[in-house]
Amino acid sequence: MPKNYHSFQEEKYFHRHAALAQEMQKSNLSALAINPGASLTYLTGLHFHLSERPVITLFMPDSHPVFVLPELEAGKTDSLPFEAQVYTYGEVPTNWSGVFRQAILDAVVGFGKIGIEPHRMRVLELRFLEESAPQTQFTDAGGLLSNLRMYKDQDEVSAIRKAVNIAQNALADTWSVIKVGVTEREIAAELTIQLLLKGSESEFPFSPIVQSGPNSANPHATPSDRKLERGDLLVIDWGARYEGYISDITRTFAIGGVDDQLAHIAQVVLDANCAARRVARAGISAADVDQAARDVIKASGYGDFFIHRTGHGIGMEGHEAPYIHAGNDMMLKPDMTFTIEPGVYLPGRGGVRIEDDVLISECGIEILTDLPRKLEIIAA
Amino acid sequence: MPKNYHSFQEEKYFHRHAALAQEMQKSNLSALAINPGASLTYLTGLHFHLSERPVITLFMPDSHPVFVLPELEAGKTDSLPFEAQVYTYGEVPTNWSGVFRQAILDAVVGFGKIGIEPHRMRVLELRFLEESAPQTQFTDAGGLLSNLRMYKDQDEVSAIRKAVNIAQNALADTWSVIKVGVTEREIAAELTIQLLLKGSESEFPFSPIVQSGPNSANPHATPSDRKLERGDLLVIDWGARYEGYISDITRTFAIGGVDDQLAHIAQVVLDANCAARRVARAGISAADVDQAARDVIKASGYGDFFIHRTGHGIGMEGHEAPYIHAGNDMMLKPDMTFTIEPGVYLPGRGGVRIEDDVLISECGIEILTDLPRKLEIIAA
Repeated sequence: MPKNYHSFQEEKYFHRHAALAQEMQKSNLSALAINPGASLTYLTGLHFHLSERPVITLFMPDSHPVFVLPELEAGKTDSLPFEAQVYTYGEVPTNWSGVFRQAILDAVVGFGKIGIEPHRMRVLELRFLEESAPQTQFTDAGGLLSNLRMYKDQDEVSAIRKAVNIAQNALADTWSVIKVGVTEREIAAELTIQLLLKGSESEFPFSPIVQSGPNSANPHATPSDRKLERGDLLVIDWGARYEGYISDITRTFAIGGVDDQLAHIAQVVLDANCAARRVARAGISAADVDQAARDVIKASGYGDFFIHRTGHGIGMEGHEAPYIHAGNDMMLKPDMTFTIEPGVYLPGRGGVRIEDDVLISECGIEILTDLPRKLEIIAA
Repeated sequence: MPKNYHSFQEEKYFHRHAALAQEMQKSNLSALAINPGASLTYLTGLHFHLSERPVITLFMPDSHPVFVLPELEAGKTDSLPFEAQVYTYGEVPTNWSGVFRQAILDAVVGFGKIGIEPHRMRVLELRFLEESAPQTQFTDAGGLLSNLRMYKDQDEVSAIRKAVNIAQNALADTWSVIKVGVTEREIAAELTIQLLLKGSESEFPFSPIVQSGPNSANPHATPSDRKLERGDLLVIDWGARYEGYISDITRTFAIGGVDDQLAHIAQVVLDANCAARRVARAGISAADVDQAARDVIKASGYGDFFIHRTGHGIGMEGHEAPYIHAGNDMMLKPDMTFTIEPGVYLPGRGGVRIEDDVLISECGIEILTDLPRKLEIIAA
């Protein structure tokens, strides 16, 4: 570890905790109770797996964070770049309540409002907290945390850029296996290996999605044993993780050419992607970006077949703020990173999605992904 | 798909739903509300990722399952091998409540007790359910589901056996990279690639854990950039997934030989592993198996350094019932599958863990893992 590494880390978490304290005070929260996931990693640098053992970190506006965790995970808190109180419990579940109660008691947070992340916290942790602080109201603080995490600093953007490069390089070296007769699953397996070889962390943001022919009309399907056929659309949606940060890209290909309708929707989606990239910049709302893509697809007559939002934030998670959908009036601001990924899906026939990763900067927009977007015909 | 595949699937889910209905009636539940995870996959065959979009399936004792999910996931329910009601919602979160309300209303479950899995369900889904059924009590049904999933049928055991073989083969081909000067992270990356090459699904049960020297004293650490040194203990804990089922194995190695104390704890842990395998059989309690391992380690004087339970169930999840720890009086029965993984961890010096996967059968115990367990010295 270089000599100044720890102080750099100290500074990073000092700033994050200070920003958090400020937001807690604004929201009149006595504490935030965070369980394992991206926000906890953002605030502590630590990784935990969700298991049947509850793990909670309490953040207070004016005292050190408090960890409640299993003994066998306690080692992770040894080299934290900030001061903390650590409460541990053993393997017998009946003793866990007492440890939670003591932690909440010592942190003196049992009488205020405690913020939680409802999309992350499980009922398991909530019940331990409720039991330990029966007079406390547990309130949705998901927005508070996502507002902090939404603005990426320079290191975070660098990590996302690197994750984009890894993913793009991985596809390049998967190219040679894509041909008639190969299954979706085989392509996904090769792409996964290439992601690792190119430097992705093995905790992928998601497993590569590879969908061919009629399967491509199903935006979130799992790769199957279907073999590529001439005339298929092929949708590949994949991403890498680097230093905890992710990329998320989709490209669509044609196997030996496709019929006119499928070629047409590919062009429509490309135009929609282009329109959204053209309008996205600071001062434009998330809803406006969605509208730009949606208008193009509607005008083509395929509006009913664009069945998802135009994009979502990217960072430590694949899905985070800002969400690019109708009704989200949030203004885009510099340092936000998100996807632009319109699609058209014709049930039983096929689908097209083109997904880019973008950064809002002071000077407009930076497109982090640079693979060709035009429907490429793979020789069959 | 072979012609009888669908009817085989129909039968499998018919049996699982019938067993579930019986348990629900015993527990006086009007429904079970399950969100994405292993139990949902067990009961439906479907996979969903946890995202900011809530997904719930309701199971009732005497009507078809009811799905509430985003439109873009609806395609997954097209070829279910059982009848179901599907409610979908679009991309605008403000409309989601209404869809949940309608589903709960139509399922006529709003007045009884609804079971949930607290270690799986998030506060996100709970809040939608509570809002839709304000008079309902949401109660812990985790035990009900884990009791069903704990007994593996022949196909499930076959999948676990295959996952064990894949993991063992992967380690064999990672062997050549393990030497002085290589980092934990490099070994983990190679092992991950080998898992895929040998046939693991890319949704690993967990990322390989590779810990060397003092790091090996930390049972759940993440692979670091530490380079292997002569005299290190090296703990590798890894697993594969095959047809949704997992393996979970740990072996410990010595890099060019280790000092007497470390060699001694390796022998102690091996004896403890052996003792636990010797007692484990139908009619013996989980606590007794834990005790058998723990007694050996205590007798050696290292009792305080065995800081976790002796094992956990394996199946679709890495951690499931039966949990092998003190205080768990559950009797082992045929068709249960779990790990036996005692360990000793000396802070700052090093640790040893030896983990096997076992099946309780009518005739005693079957050890699914067969890699050598004795501390192997890797030439430095």
